[in-house]
Amino acid sequence: MPYFDAASAAPLHPVGRQALLAALDEGWADPARLYREGRRARLLLDAAREAAAEAVECRPDELVFTPSGTRAVHAGIEGALAGRRRVGRHLIVSAVEHSSVLHAAEAHEALGGSVTEVGVDRTGAVAPDAFAGSLRPDTALACLQSANHEVGTVQPVAEVAEACRAAGVPLLVDAAQSLGWGPVAGDWSLLTASAHKWGGPSGVGLLVVRKGVRFAPSGPRDERESGRAAGFENIPAVLAAAASLRAVRAEAAGEAARLRELTERIRTRVPALVPDVEVTGDPERRLPGIVTFSCLYVDGETVLHELDGAGFSVSSGSSCTSSTLTPSHVLRAMGVLSEGNVRVSLPPGTPAEDVERFLAVLPGVVAGVREKLGAPVTAGGVRGTERGAGGSGAPAGDVLVVDALGRRCPVPVIELSRVIGDVPVGGTVRVLADDEAARLDIPAWCEMRGQEYVGEESADRGSAYVVRRTS
Amino acid sequence: MPYFDAASAAPLHPVGRQALLAALDEGWADPARLYREGRRARLLLDAAREAAAEAVECRPDELVFTPSGTRAVHAGIEGALAGRRRVGRHLIVSAVEHSSVLHAAEAHEALGGSVTEVGVDRTGAVAPDAFAGSLRPDTALACLQSANHEVGTVQPVAEVAEACRAAGVPLLVDAAQSLGWGPVAGDWSLLTASAHKWGGPSGVGLLVVRKGVRFAPSGPRDERESGRAAGFENIPAVLAAAASLRAVRAEAAGEAARLRELTERIRTRVPALVPDVEVTGDPERRLPGIVTFSCLYVDGETVLHELDGAGFSVSSGSSCTSSTLTPSHVLRAMGVLSEGNVRVSLPPGTPAEDVERFLAVLPGVVAGVREKLGAPVTAGGVRGTERGAGGSGAPAGDVLVVDALGRRCPVPVIELSRVIGDVPVGGTVRVLADDEAARLDIPAWCEMRGQEYVGEESADRGSAYVVRRTS
Repeated sequence: MPYFDAASAAPLHPVGRQALLAALDEGWADPARLYREGRRARLLLDAAREAAAEAVECRPDELVFTPSGTRAVHAGIEGALAGRRRVGRHLIVSAVEHSSVLHAAEAHEALGGSVTEVGVDRTGAVAPDAFAGSLRPDTALACLQSANHEVGTVQPVAEVAEACRAAGVPLLVDAAQSLGWGPVAGDWSLLTASAHKWGGPSGVGLLVVRKGVRFAPSGPRDERESGRAAGFENIPAVLAAAASLRAVRAEAAGEAARLRELTERIRTRVPALVPDVEVTGDPERRLPGIVTFSCLYVDGETVLHELDGAGFSVSSGSSCTSSTLTPSHVLRAMGVLSEGNVRVSLPPGTPAEDVERFLAVLPGVVAGVREKLGAPVTAGGVRGTERGAGGSGAPAGDVLVVDALGRRCPVPVIELSRVIGDVPVGGTVRVLADDEAARLDIPAWCEMRGQEYVGEESADRGSAYVVRRTS
Repeated sequence: MPYFDAASAAPLHPVGRQALLAALDEGWADPARLYREGRRARLLLDAAREAAAEAVECRPDELVFTPSGTRAVHAGIEGALAGRRRVGRHLIVSAVEHSSVLHAAEAHEALGGSVTEVGVDRTGAVAPDAFAGSLRPDTALACLQSANHEVGTVQPVAEVAEACRAAGVPLLVDAAQSLGWGPVAGDWSLLTASAHKWGGPSGVGLLVVRKGVRFAPSGPRDERESGRAAGFENIPAVLAAAASLRAVRAEAAGEAARLRELTERIRTRVPALVPDVEVTGDPERRLPGIVTFSCLYVDGETVLHELDGAGFSVSSGSSCTSSTLTPSHVLRAMGVLSEGNVRVSLPPGTPAEDVERFLAVLPGVVAGVREKLGAPVTAGGVRGTERGAGGSGAPAGDVLVVDALGRRCPVPVIELSRVIGDVPVGGTVRVLADDEAARLDIPAWCEMRGQEYVGEESADRGSAYVVRRTS
């Protein structure tokens, strides 16, 4: 049963498991105590810190263990902002950061700080110039992920770090997705990561603060972990995390090449096997194991459910699979299709046969869902004849109005695709919809179909999305 | 090698270990995901929550797992204060709470809130009337531990909870030391605990917020654990925590009776075996496994070191064993001796022979340290003859001045005990000292020795402690 969601969490690496078991016996005591069980725990904690620091390429006293990657991000951002409060309260983040970064930014804004979100191109990457252009005299901190968690695009961290350094602004790098593959290059100031992404156990994050970076820990004081991560140290888990990191790093170069070839198969063959698919993310500057694509005219939840039934565990940034009912902020920032979104993230060791079997199963799954939803079956072009003027109640100038109010993704896009052939070239269709995903998916559909997206207008209920048939 | 510091951390219970191992294989995935690994993780998380809630005697949806007891306390206090901000910003804590509670109170004060610390008697217990008397119309929250972590005294939680309920103020109970022994009685509103205190793994705390209690989580929002504990769930650990709790509870009644008898042996026999010892804490209303005593004329660090060499791991609230160089705030609040402080906390399963061996070893250890420090060797009374007037430079009225400036605990008290026999009954000794512990230990010595503590006066350097010989 292939598990293809390593970007969410990876099972514990056998080496990490072994370290965990040993440390359950040796590392349960309080490392602040002076008796032998405490001294033993302290030795293990120091060893874990040294191993992790070596993998990050920092000094051991720059690195603390936190209870999760999310806590590392929250503590890192809050601490760096507080440390530079005198400089100002401006925070820069990319629009495609992990939600933990964006939520910390939100919290900063709620407390009166200001936030600039730097946009990305269609591949999901920030432009170093644009990032540098958002630096201000009152910028206290900038945040950029090493690589994106949803589409795998690698960010230009070294260039951005250089710009930040020149401006005297610390850069925090969320390295959650990449640290298992290698250290983060460039002159960054803070770094965060999460062990269960690289095959470490749950319950361990890393927060690195370079010497010389002003940092004021937030929250009630606590003597553990240099005052940067409150609470009793979880030594068995941090030891397992460090051991796993060392183990995956030893295999990283070979495994990266192998997974890169496997994800390349998906990148190139899915569009050939499944009509109306958009593969997202940068084709070159990307993580080895992640590939993401979106399929028109299907809903992500049903695709995930069908793939699960066929034995494949994947995730999706479609709105129907999230509790908030809004499409992934990453796909939105990229301006790409969100419906029928599938993220495949291969864990190290994935056999090629599993990927081949996935490629064999996927076309039938998508076709089945499309059939159930009554979606168009052919790829490309515009189906149907050039019929005359459209339905009743159409405002002057519109040839057709599609009322998809109250209908959820992907129905508005399916309805649009059904009628586009019925309007003359040059004519417009007005789609009324109140599902959030439509705002992203109708323009994306136009882009994929070569039709013109005229724009969005507010309506009594929901919005009206206007599309002009151009071919 | 007997480990007698269960109040700091207990090794993982075998049942917890088994649960942890099973959950490493079954519970590593993201419980928010819909595929089978995610559903499996969700089932385990739900099962752990139900088991823990049963042990706490609350509803499962009132309980979240946090990364540590400290995090549970910080999040609980911050959330409850924020939830009742409109009522006011007054917080009540007992003076003997765990440092995580006191540090959260400090942080609240730093942000402009007000804090009342309710004192304790010489046994370490709060008086329900005094606690109730500190409730004000603007009190947002009150905090009282279920039992003290340093001396084992059980607090009158049910009575205090009733008073809080009558005043409409929520009571947060830090149950870290007692939850393994049983649920907390009384009508409390919030409860916190820490798994590694009851033989669960590191990395798990509990935060319970009763339905109807106003609560506004602090920090950046996060969808995990009802928004009350940010970060990826550590399912193997929470499962192990819940399984351990159930296991220790099954053995709790029998084990409590057995440990209570063993700690009673220490309570009664140490004062007989070792001269000049004060046993602290309530003799009746106390936890089964904790007993604490302080030995005049020795320093805690050396005693701990010698006991460690003899194979016993214990802890101490003496100033010389803490990084802050101040005596334990608990001993200070109780007004008892802090020097030569030893806390014995027996893990379940401690054999009687280990305790007997401890009782056999302790007198020699203390005598050895005293000898090295040149401390008085006899117990009770006042040694020496009734000599005439004292040393040069004594201010008018003082018979003797002891200059212990720059000398650390227990030297000022040793010096005092050396000269007290040299002043006439009714005469005074003035001890000059700048070690923080003297402020606590000189009055405590007077209490133990039946001499009169006249008071403290400020001096050019440190303080002057005035003692009158009364017998």
